[in-house]
Amino acid sequence: MFIKILQRIVEESGGGIGAVLMGYDGIAIEQYFSPEEKLDLHMIAVEYANVLREIRRTAEILNLGDMEEVSIKTERYHIVVRIITADYFVAMTLRRDGNFGKARYLLTRETGNLLAALA
Amino acid sequence: MFIKILQRIVEESGGGIGAVLMGYDGIAIEQYFSPEEKLDLHMIAVEYANVLREIRRTAEILNLGDMEEVSIKTERYHIVVRIITADYFVAMTLRRDGNFGKARYLLTRETGNLLAALA
Repeated sequence: MFIKILQRIVEESGGGIGAVLMGYDGIAIEQYFSPEEKLDLHMIAVEYANVLREIRRTAEILNLGDMEEVSIKTERYHIVVRIITADYFVAMTLRRDGNFGKARYLLTRETGNLLAALA
Repeated sequence: MFIKILQRIVEESGGGIGAVLMGYDGIAIEQYFSPEEKLDLHMIAVEYANVLREIRRTAEILNLGDMEEVSIKTERYHIVVRIITADYFVAMTLRRDGNFGKARYLLTRETGNLLAALA
């Protein structure tokens, strides 16, 4: 169950706003949002899907090895993207004061479960 | 002195390969590489300058606040980019087993010194 996994990631991290499992084509499979949050993480993930494809392509050209994780810190948010397969990624948003390290750990921990659920 | 600051960041982080201070136009001001490393960080930074502009533009459109930091983890490397001004950023590369958290801390710590040196 994708939703359970996403919910676990958001709730166990400190300051988690939401998480979305999405294809590189910008189409979401599932998403979970913390009830009190209004931020449109779905829109963020759609907008950044193109950027992720570009980062991946550049990593291939430069022979850096497969892309595994991308994170973006802004004045207000942390966005952590974990690559799950060649087609899918999870994008998670935390408040800026959230626990970025724990979010990264939870995404890494749940990658195997998401892979199993996608299979 | 830019080179001293970059050298400090690379040497104090565990597993640092190099750091480059660069404009969004892909033109480097200064760079420092650990002597034993062969990775072309300059090329990586040039290639990703476009992606950074795109991430920044998207953050503006989505009202996420100013972009402060972007990191990319691949099979072999960590790349950490710290935004210094509207025109300049520092890109740093670490080996995958390097100390990502310390690199982020050092980049944050030295941002004020880089700002002062750019002024």
